[in-house]
Amino acid sequence: MYQNTPTLSHIPRLLTMSSFQPESSDATAINTIRTLAVDIVSKSNSGHPGAPMGMAPVSHILFSRFFKANPKNPKWFNRDRFVLSNGHACALQYTLLHLLGFNVTIDDLKSFRQLGSITPGHPEAGVTDGIEVTTGPLGQGIANAVGLAIAQAHFGAGYNKEGFELINNHTYVFLGDGCLMEGVSGEASSLAGHLQLGNLIAIYDDNHISIDGDTNVAFTEDVNKRYEAYGWEVLVVENGDDDLAAIYDAIAKAQQSKNKPTLIKLRTTIGYGSKLQGTHGVHGAPLKADDAANVKSKFGFDPQAHFAVPDETKAAYAKFIERGAALEAEWEKLFGAYKSKYPEEHAELCRRIAGELPQGWEQKLPVYKVGDPAIASRSLSEKVLQAISGTVVELVGGSADLTGSNLTRVKEAVDFQPASTGLGDYSGRYIRYGVREHAMGAIMNGLAAYGGIIPFGGTFLNFVSYAAGAVRLSALSHHQVIWVATHDSIGLGEDGPTHQPVETAAHFRAVPNLAFWRPADGNETSAAYLVALKSKKTPSILSLSRQNLPQLENSTIEHAVKGGYVLHEVENEDLTIVSTGSEVPIAVEAASILEKEGIKTRVVSLPCWEVFDSQPQEYRLSVLRSGAPILSVEAYSTVGWQKYSHEQLGLPGWGASGPYQKVYESFGLTGANIANLGKKTVEFYKKRGGEVTSPLLKAF
Amino acid sequence: MYQNTPTLSHIPRLLTMSSFQPESSDATAINTIRTLAVDIVSKSNSGHPGAPMGMAPVSHILFSRFFKANPKNPKWFNRDRFVLSNGHACALQYTLLHLLGFNVTIDDLKSFRQLGSITPGHPEAGVTDGIEVTTGPLGQGIANAVGLAIAQAHFGAGYNKEGFELINNHTYVFLGDGCLMEGVSGEASSLAGHLQLGNLIAIYDDNHISIDGDTNVAFTEDVNKRYEAYGWEVLVVENGDDDLAAIYDAIAKAQQSKNKPTLIKLRTTIGYGSKLQGTHGVHGAPLKADDAANVKSKFGFDPQAHFAVPDETKAAYAKFIERGAALEAEWEKLFGAYKSKYPEEHAELCRRIAGELPQGWEQKLPVYKVGDPAIASRSLSEKVLQAISGTVVELVGGSADLTGSNLTRVKEAVDFQPASTGLGDYSGRYIRYGVREHAMGAIMNGLAAYGGIIPFGGTFLNFVSYAAGAVRLSALSHHQVIWVATHDSIGLGEDGPTHQPVETAAHFRAVPNLAFWRPADGNETSAAYLVALKSKKTPSILSLSRQNLPQLENSTIEHAVKGGYVLHEVENEDLTIVSTGSEVPIAVEAASILEKEGIKTRVVSLPCWEVFDSQPQEYRLSVLRSGAPILSVEAYSTVGWQKYSHEQLGLPGWGASGPYQKVYESFGLTGANIANLGKKTVEFYKKRGGEVTSPLLKAF
Repeated sequence: MYQNTPTLSHIPRLLTMSSFQPESSDATAINTIRTLAVDIVSKSNSGHPGAPMGMAPVSHILFSRFFKANPKNPKWFNRDRFVLSNGHACALQYTLLHLLGFNVTIDDLKSFRQLGSITPGHPEAGVTDGIEVTTGPLGQGIANAVGLAIAQAHFGAGYNKEGFELINNHTYVFLGDGCLMEGVSGEASSLAGHLQLGNLIAIYDDNHISIDGDTNVAFTEDVNKRYEAYGWEVLVVENGDDDLAAIYDAIAKAQQSKNKPTLIKLRTTIGYGSKLQGTHGVHGAPLKADDAANVKSKFGFDPQAHFAVPDETKAAYAKFIERGAALEAEWEKLFGAYKSKYPEEHAELCRRIAGELPQGWEQKLPVYKVGDPAIASRSLSEKVLQAISGTVVELVGGSADLTGSNLTRVKEAVDFQPASTGLGDYSGRYIRYGVREHAMGAIMNGLAAYGGIIPFGGTFLNFVSYAAGAVRLSALSHHQVIWVATHDSIGLGEDGPTHQPVETAAHFRAVPNLAFWRPADGNETSAAYLVALKSKKTPSILSLSRQNLPQLENSTIEHAVKGGYVLHEVENEDLTIVSTGSEVPIAVEAASILEKEGIKTRVVSLPCWEVFDSQPQEYRLSVLRSGAPILSVEAYSTVGWQKYSHEQLGLPGWGASGPYQKVYESFGLTGANIANLGKKTVEFYKKRGGEVTSPLLKAF
Repeated sequence: MYQNTPTLSHIPRLLTMSSFQPESSDATAINTIRTLAVDIVSKSNSGHPGAPMGMAPVSHILFSRFFKANPKNPKWFNRDRFVLSNGHACALQYTLLHLLGFNVTIDDLKSFRQLGSITPGHPEAGVTDGIEVTTGPLGQGIANAVGLAIAQAHFGAGYNKEGFELINNHTYVFLGDGCLMEGVSGEASSLAGHLQLGNLIAIYDDNHISIDGDTNVAFTEDVNKRYEAYGWEVLVVENGDDDLAAIYDAIAKAQQSKNKPTLIKLRTTIGYGSKLQGTHGVHGAPLKADDAANVKSKFGFDPQAHFAVPDETKAAYAKFIERGAALEAEWEKLFGAYKSKYPEEHAELCRRIAGELPQGWEQKLPVYKVGDPAIASRSLSEKVLQAISGTVVELVGGSADLTGSNLTRVKEAVDFQPASTGLGDYSGRYIRYGVREHAMGAIMNGLAAYGGIIPFGGTFLNFVSYAAGAVRLSALSHHQVIWVATHDSIGLGEDGPTHQPVETAAHFRAVPNLAFWRPADGNETSAAYLVALKSKKTPSILSLSRQNLPQLENSTIEHAVKGGYVLHEVENEDLTIVSTGSEVPIAVEAASILEKEGIKTRVVSLPCWEVFDSQPQEYRLSVLRSGAPILSVEAYSTVGWQKYSHEQLGLPGWGASGPYQKVYESFGLTGANIANLGKKTVEFYKKRGGEVTSPLLKAF
């Protein structure tokens, strides 16, 4: 029933044309959703009842008539994806997951927003079965959905064969005014229109209410026209509270849109059924007890009962479970036949779905030796990508309009583009993101969430900050996403302080579960990719230089994968210098100057704090050992370096515009000045007396 | 000539209607701009010649026919504002500033992108006369321009009187495809349309080229339609390379648009005149020597000469200088008459233009004593705003759709809205930003850059990260901007980790010239505002709690303005606990437990690192003194705390969704656990032996 619906040319007025088949259980099911959402928020005394009450009808129609998923195997690969971009409405999503038979019980609903529950205040991927991506920060979900839709198109183009439409799922996303106001959603929607993602269906809860009250205080643009401008199909449902046929027809029509994503603008009444319906009063706080009872009475429920699910509703949603199991079984049969006919593709697809890397890929990583030419680490990154892309086919990358600077596109790359553009096709693995860093970050989260893809994206390190909202969600959601962040310091030179990151390293090092890598040479760059590709649950940012860097003695992949290691060892040292990236060779130069003056100096390279911190304490203490002071050197803010060093040299403020060598000089980031500060450090600690202990030795 | 042009109903085809009066010097002036831009980029061997060459005609027409400014007093208050949102094209802006008579010499042009020059790689406010805002990071400039336009509308509504149109300047902004792709520009443009900012004229350099090549690889949306959807007037100039009359007419028509901002889409040829014109080859690298010579020959310049400015061009631009001086003189006369008639308004406006705070405003700051009720610091912030807003009329604030949560709107507030909406008027000081944090940050930069306004904006601390790109530019550009960043930690409770900042404090503490405040109680909140309002060159972020906080003993405004102070003093201490914000009372509780067990414990409150670091070393060492270990306690990542403490307690990862007390407990942020860790700390350092020295004692 939910397939092969006819195309409707006018939505939603021509009801006579509707192929919607109402069922007697529809109204009860919808009101079950509404009353459950009310009870969930009331029980926890925290949350948002209004949007769930308003979006109950569209939720019911979508899931009962259209949505393909198997609650008993929420990871079935060809399932439809659902994203609640207005994540604060998650009482709705948890309610649906419960009713649809996912692993969310009534007790889980009763534990809404309680410590340790699987029903936290906003949906979190990895915490709750059936939650694809983490939402709540507005605008992220719709951009994630664009990534999910790109992933489907890409897998479809790569693996579907005549008679084997293996990968053909839709991505559905709910969003509200807040999501539409956020810039990240505009960026992602513009790209989705360009990419002609017909498999993406967004349903906009046009309820006219945001936290400041009526949206007319700040949001009076013509959303439909804007989305048409982006190249989307736009449909309108004028009565989203009651007109189930119109909702049905709109979704059915959206499914027929093959070359355009669809926005369904659904006019709803926030908090439908409440005495305060249509007002901000039902947005973000529980209904009063008498109003909750009133809602239940109005919808024919026992006003004194809580968390009631009528048998009629249970029976209606049981069909969803049956249908889902049948759909997956049918698909597995198809996939079995596919295996016989296309064994290689089958094996590759299975490997990708399992998240396993191809055997032996690490052998392709470039290895360097001292004396090899000095190369910018952005070029070293390019060499890695060039070396492994043919093997690691799950790498799907791009750049935010800095391809020639980030060096993210390998020679054989095909662009991910609609074939009609003549610029590539959906099997292509190179995405032209445009100047849209935040959307790139959020789309990469969607690509990673789909499964079978390791996304990477290029921009200048400084502009990863534009995507901070998406980066933290990568880390929180355990998405394996790789940022190729070039032009990573004052070393970019002439572009000046507007483009030179200073605070960026401290920022990203403080994000839990995020590996911020700053490799110093070729082997360290290969090591960064090695760890980044093996870390299935951790995003990585590779901070890469514009300027050339020499290949360092004693730098090896085996050393660098530990996140930190002794690059230059001496016994009974007077000083250790610890550094990262492009400053490591300068530190080595300083050590050489100091040694000529009789000051024994070790050099430690610490390309990734996150990974170094995960090493055994014994190893860490062998690298940053007691006995002599440690001086850190990095062309960033020194914030955070006190954890690993006694003294710090960094940027005292903003960078500067000029040829990079002169900029380095002006900040004292030269071998001579570091040697000078090294001497001061040694003298200071001699004068102080007593043992110098490693900063890693802590009381607890 | 540049005023009172007739309104044209069709642009640009009806040339017969044009009132454009060509001058014989126009072509030479335009070609002077083009050849100077070529020379500038060639001389520095770095930069972007293409956009300047393409935008030379519109630049010439805008500045020679329309633009009101006095190069000899670039701070004249009623000057038109110009913003180069595509800041990489700054060879154009520097060229114009030179030709127009601003304090930019030919030698300055020759020092383009050199260390210490006033012509850095991207335009920087405060470095170069005539540069209003810092641009380069794409999308910022157009959003700054919205702020500049809001400021004009606000001042006009507040101070203009019958016969005294004192403040009526326009804001002009150039922007390219990159700016239009960035989400922040969409956010700001949507708001500008809503606010009906007729004084804003944006000129879009539609040259079809971005760094990845033709814009059709990623940017195929209908820009005109999108801007119409935002409520803008959209005009098109089909030949921006040659059709001066069309350019003139478009700007003239834009000036007539009273209730809509205008976007002029100007089709240009990037690198016009170069052999590579119209290609990416002229975007971001110098022209080859023979091509540079070719350009000069083509435009009738000596191919061997460099930095040539024909006398004809000098004479043409001399008129601009004369006109500017005359305009300002006329305005000063008007302002003098205004003084006689409206002495109070005149005095207030003078005070605001001078950037001086009203006398005695500090006396209005709330003061608290121990025993006063516990109050959330977001409410304490509201009390400050309520107390001072009537006096400090330059405070113009708002919220990104979280007014009721951020508590940013005082009782008497009038919304800044077009009067036609019935929701407020342009004299209103409360801006409904919508869910647009990044635009809010960039718009606040524009408001601050206009002068006479101290902007503040509210959102959750976690979502200030969405605006990271604008925040760093506030600090780099020395804009006094105040973020009212509420719900500042796991203390927000149920909303969970998607909304709980962890990395945010480390991020913003690492931004140079940014004061990140985390006040612990009422007096500290008043102190934070006191310093933030007095810091004319520094932005501030006030990290404020959702939960109630008690008034602390020994907390005073006088203490807290130092950024850090001893809250609880004991002699010969065994331990010092240093903390911020909502964890300070918990630290006090821990100290009390420890003291009962005979462990003498000091407590230091450190609400602002930036301000504390600026105190004399002697003071700082008296607060974080040698002699006993220091334990830091804060509900964020510990990154950075090693600078001020020996041991650190913070969040080891993400926060959690639940009632906030339980979340605090789960992370050991309780008096009992802190006391326990304090004991471990004391034991550890006793065992180690030797003097415990202050972490502030450094070798250099």
